Amino acid sequence: MQANTMKAIILDHKNNLNLHHVPLPVRKTGECLIKVSKAGICNTDLEIIKGYMKFHGILGHEFVGEVICADSTDLIGKRVVGEINIGCGDCFWCKRDRKEHCPNRSVLGIFNKDGCFAHYITLPEKNCFLLPDSISDEQAVFIEPLAAGLRIIHQIDIHPESNAAILGDGKLGLIIAMIFTALGIMPITLFGHHKNKMDIVSSPLIKKQNNIDSVDHQKYDYVIEATGSKKGFEDALNLVKPEGIVVLKSTISDLSDFNLAPIVINEITIIGSRCGHFQPAIKFLQTHNIPLEKMISKTYHIDRWQDAFLNANDGSNVKVILTFEQ
Amino acid sequence: MQANTMKAIILDHKNNLNLHHVPLPVRKTGECLIKVSKAGICNTDLEIIKGYMKFHGILGHEFVGEVICADSTDLIGKRVVGEINIGCGDCFWCKRDRKEHCPNRSVLGIFNKDGCFAHYITLPEKNCFLLPDSISDEQAVFIEPLAAGLRIIHQIDIHPESNAAILGDGKLGLIIAMIFTALGIMPITLFGHHKNKMDIVSSPLIKKQNNIDSVDHQKYDYVIEATGSKKGFEDALNLVKPEGIVVLKSTISDLSDFNLAPIVINEITIIGSRCGHFQPAIKFLQTHNIPLEKMISKTYHIDRWQDAFLNANDGSNVKVILTFEQ
Repeated sequence: MQANTMKAIILDHKNNLNLHHVPLPVRKTGECLIKVSKAGICNTDLEIIKGYMKFHGILGHEFVGEVICADSTDLIGKRVVGEINIGCGDCFWCKRDRKEHCPNRSVLGIFNKDGCFAHYITLPEKNCFLLPDSISDEQAVFIEPLAAGLRIIHQIDIHPESNAAILGDGKLGLIIAMIFTALGIMPITLFGHHKNKMDIVSSPLIKKQNNIDSVDHQKYDYVIEATGSKKGFEDALNLVKPEGIVVLKSTISDLSDFNLAPIVINEITIIGSRCGHFQPAIKFLQTHNIPLEKMISKTYHIDRWQDAFLNANDGSNVKVILTFEQ
Repeated sequence: MQANTMKAIILDHKNNLNLHHVPLPVRKTGECLIKVSKAGICNTDLEIIKGYMKFHGILGHEFVGEVICADSTDLIGKRVVGEINIGCGDCFWCKRDRKEHCPNRSVLGIFNKDGCFAHYITLPEKNCFLLPDSISDEQAVFIEPLAAGLRIIHQIDIHPESNAAILGDGKLGLIIAMIFTALGIMPITLFGHHKNKMDIVSSPLIKKQNNIDSVDHQKYDYVIEATGSKKGFEDALNLVKPEGIVVLKSTISDLSDFNLAPIVINEITIIGSRCGHFQPAIKFLQTHNIPLEKMISKTYHIDRWQDAFLNANDGSNVKVILTFEQ
């Protein structure tokens, strides 16, 4: 590899994924040039490969890396993670530090911005957050989904006497279960089909269930839908109490024959929930025991990207990590 | 008609609607026997005729009438309206006066309980509310949808600096527009396609629009979906700001090819909203100028029930009322 080129996993305009040699990204004023250490393959990446967001370019949005170059010299040489939404800086939302709703935003590896499955990326300084030594690279690569899980806590006031169901034993479902048990604020039931995944959340505070019985109907104050499936959303509407809250963490593509009537009849509140902020997630990880690294099933060097994606698509694995040592 | 029989509009098990002579309902302890004066044909009735709720029996749930017989003698001879949900009286919800969520409820003319398109009905005393003289029968017959509209105000805290869109110029959309303008709390836009209907809401506080332009997208803090159509729900998700609230007032049957992604991406809150309580609705009608009676397009005696339903199905009419003089 030449000094001014790098390897990158690129989704081309024919939706073919391949490893390419490409020039290093050019850092603009206000941006960091970051050398990526580790990156996580997310379900959103797998959906993007299938056509979601019509994205083409370097894939990837979960990473930890080292700042190589920046205007702020105190950042150089530091380990960082990065928020994925890049706002215009001027709009209603950006002025309130809610760049994830900026109408002109780009999103790392998802929309109009090359992602982190590459040796180097650029990202605005304001998106980059320093990592304390107490957080390992293996934990840090989960800061993005951890922040997404914590977003729920910022959106809903969870009453101490409430109960909650979490649907889905994928990465996001497990992270939300870890957050809820760490907060110790409620009885929780995690619904999933994979014993090896559910075992990762080891707290005795959590109940685990494979199937939903009729006795579970209208039993929960809060239901977190983290399966991204029509069945999961249907289950959520069945499980939640009248006047209860369903948090939707994943988009659902197929809604044919779906019955929304329970939302009106049982006066259910549905709350869409997306990205969270990184600083509170880093703080949360410093102050709570969240065994994020237990979710890493496999780690591959970028040169073995095909094995990595094969394993990421295998439902028995939880998280597949890419590394970038040269 | 014999003294112990009455006329009633009955939906039979083959979903045929007909006028029948049937025995008077038998009043049980705790119930009122009510002589119906006026009843309103609601869109829900038209949906039930098409198969919604699989209801069979005497149709109708919006009425005003006179109490003929009751345990509480002070009710006898009084004009009343009636809440439509009849709870078990013992459950979590009934004990909190939220009988509309009682899992064992019956619902007047909708589920397990004969409705009000008949000369007489029975209803628990606790469901019946006395009408002050200042409220005419023509207004009182709208108390049920007025309470359903006011339910929104009880579910969401409307910020004084917010704006709202109401989708649909049917009865419910117009009533919600009347409530919002009466409260004078926000700039409101009513979206609908019928000038004659939108003209009923005459307040200068309200803006009226036939079509949605791209400049309207993500413009509203609150969007009230009162069309009951897939298109209306899609429009609502386009019109609402990120982190805004969409209130769903009607069930939507066809969701094929529907895209729920904006709910997650823009972190929208969807609130299902159904029935409201009658006492605050009566109070509201006493203290605000709500020209409900302007929505009456046609009035028919029960003997002309076929004309009544023909006109209720005609989209150019707003409300069709049945009368029951013998």
